[in-house]
Amino acid sequence: MTILVAVRGWKPDHWIHALREVAPDRSVVLPGDDFDSSSVRYALVWKPEPGYLKTFEKLEVIFSLGAGVDHLTTDPDLPDLPVVRIVDPDLTGRMTEWVVLNVLLHHRRHAHYAAAQTSCSWKPLRQWAAGAVRVGIMGLGELGRDAARALLALGFNVSGWSRTEKRMEGVDCFHGREGLAPFLARTDILVSLLPLTAETENLIDRSVIDALAKDGPLGGPVILNAGRGRSLVEADLLDALNDGRLRGASLDVFATEPLPPESPLWGAPNLFMTPHVAAESDPVALSRYVLGEIVAYEAGQPLRHLVDRGKGY
Amino acid sequence: MTILVAVRGWKPDHWIHALREVAPDRSVVLPGDDFDSSSVRYALVWKPEPGYLKTFEKLEVIFSLGAGVDHLTTDPDLPDLPVVRIVDPDLTGRMTEWVVLNVLLHHRRHAHYAAAQTSCSWKPLRQWAAGAVRVGIMGLGELGRDAARALLALGFNVSGWSRTEKRMEGVDCFHGREGLAPFLARTDILVSLLPLTAETENLIDRSVIDALAKDGPLGGPVILNAGRGRSLVEADLLDALNDGRLRGASLDVFATEPLPPESPLWGAPNLFMTPHVAAESDPVALSRYVLGEIVAYEAGQPLRHLVDRGKGY
Ligand SMILES: NC(=O)c1ccc[n+]([C@@H]2O[C@H](COP(=O)([O-])OP(=O)(O)OC[C@H]3O[C@@H](n4cnc5c(N)ncnc54)[C@H](OP(=O)(O)O)[C@@H]3O)[C@@H](O)[C@H]2O)c1
Ligand SMILES: NC(=O)c1ccc[n+]([C@@H]2O[C@H](COP(=O)([O-])OP(=O)(O)OC[C@H]3O[C@@H](n4cnc5c(N)ncnc54)[C@H](OP(=O)(O)O)[C@@H]3O)[C@@H](O)[C@H]2O)c1
Repeated sequence: MTILVAVRGWKPDHWIHALREVAPDRSVVLPGDDFDSSSVRYALVWKPEPGYLKTFEKLEVIFSLGAGVDHLTTDPDLPDLPVVRIVDPDLTGRMTEWVVLNVLLHHRRHAHYAAAQTSCSWKPLRQWAAGAVRVGIMGLGELGRDAARALLALGFNVSGWSRTEKRMEGVDCFHGREGLAPFLARTDILVSLLPLTAETENLIDRSVIDALAKDGPLGGPVILNAGRGRSLVEADLLDALNDGRLRGASLDVFATEPLPPESPLWGAPNLFMTPHVAAESDPVALSRYVLGEIVAYEAGQPLRHLVDRGKGY
Repeated sequence: MTILVAVRGWKPDHWIHALREVAPDRSVVLPGDDFDSSSVRYALVWKPEPGYLKTFEKLEVIFSLGAGVDHLTTDPDLPDLPVVRIVDPDLTGRMTEWVVLNVLLHHRRHAHYAAAQTSCSWKPLRQWAAGAVRVGIMGLGELGRDAARALLALGFNVSGWSRTEKRMEGVDCFHGREGLAPFLARTDILVSLLPLTAETENLIDRSVIDALAKDGPLGGPVILNAGRGRSLVEADLLDALNDGRLRGASLDVFATEPLPPESPLWGAPNLFMTPHVAAESDPVALSRYVLGEIVAYEAGQPLRHLVDRGKGY
């Protein structure tokens, strides 16, 4: 019943340590270790080498160590096994913090006040109430719904957009291709928490930017993206920030990560950037979560939060 | 039944306009106008000239156009009339936004990420969960309780400190002089929403700073002040930021406002500043509030939110 931890881009030490603490009776191995590959039943993975997972003939379940699964679904040799994704209050809460912080940075004119401070000048601005600001959330899944709840509690006017029809109290819900234009037309701050799929790739482009509300209190629309970098066309965002069609933006995810030092995004006006840290997977919280799922699975319970390979999320 | 609007430091136009809209049948006057002073029953004031209010012999109620009343209680000639202060969800919500934004700026290491962006570098940091961060709120009144509620909803560990004993679900409550040391010892981020009174003046000094928790996840304590500037000793805050005893701070209020351009605070490390805009009084929302209170008073109802002159708030 060996558990394999295969993470690229992260140091695996914390994960191994956290897993061994919660599962002292199980064997936890890393790709370079000396172990019998036919003993591996579970794989906890992040961006595994394409083709690597098909080498474990007794593998039963693949756990994606993050909410997104595009790092797996792009492997043409991914074995036909259940893929479970992380849905954990620790991770969700972190994303909500990022969304709330970045909505407030724009709403409360942080860029203006930071510049005023640098020039030692006292420059109060009139401030609109949260209720006058329309936040539109793309993706009403685990993360989008929690962010909506937190923004509602702060008094913002919140709407959402998803693939299939959704209902959420206090939130104006739109869905599908037909729902996109009316959703954008009533949005001052667009927040993308979409997964990366064939349908969402390059979705947020010039046409989406130009369809956002122009009459809002912020003096122009704002875009936040913490879903996946490739669902947004960076060149179109940059143009819109530079020519003022966008009032501001916040990005946590990028088409290429780490973002190369020569990217023109670093210096774009009114852009706040974080290096894909919006909702880190905490090894301690998430090892416990994964072990709980394994124990339930071995007791014959159904797996939860399975990825639909057809939809891609 | 004339209503007098006497505001210094703000332009009165918005107030006059908003009041005339909600009370078209009443006479609304400004200090320079030509009117019979004995017709004035109500005064809506912000920092009125000391001694000015005693010149209206038929004045019945004084409304302070802000949550704080230190601008009134410092007038030795203030007539012995009921002073009503503003308690309005619009104003309270704005303060909660400021508190949440500034707690998250420090919690989510905004200063680090802003500097990394300026140098075009990708520098992710490990991030602690909100539950590991202890926020201590000084003042559990209208503003403090609402901020506590919003921070609890984001998962922070919240405590509070007040003059008299308070209870609030999920919040560790301390009170009085004896409660101060244990409250500070378990606080990573101190948020002051205290009124300015003889007791709170210069309260947050070196001894308070040095009594904050040092073992927290932020690498040192943080102080936020949006109550009143003179409850904090600016020189002590500056020293602590400069020598690293404080990890960061956010100030919306200052001993002297506007903060003079030569103040060393402008350039202090890890300090975020806003020019007393945390919770602006919105003329439209608040004129309706005041008129509602006047109408109720004239119908024989008791006045609400009366200031206790003895306590000073
Ligand atoms: N930056 C970070 O640190 C970080 C951390 C974690 C996750 N993420 C990203 O956040 C994404 C969302 O996570 P989650 O847990 O909320 O996922 P989820 O629960 O699967 O929700 C995804 C949402 O997106 C909607 N959606 C998918 N395709 C769509 C389309 N073509 N058109 C319209 N809506 C579409 C879904 O609609 P339905 O409801 O109709 O299915 C659903 O509401 C992840 O996939 C990942 O990429 C980023
Ligand atoms: N920056 C801005 O834009 C802005 C805007 C509005 C207001 N403010 C400031 O915020 C302050 C608070 O407003 P509020 O509406 O929350 O007032 P409030 O409802 O009167 O609450 C004041 C709180 O402070 C506590 N307190 C007072 N003196 C104390 C002392 N000596 N020791 C310990 N606790 C003490 C009170 O304790 P008890 O509960 O025991 O009475 C109460 O919990 C205002 O006075 C104003 O100065 C700033």
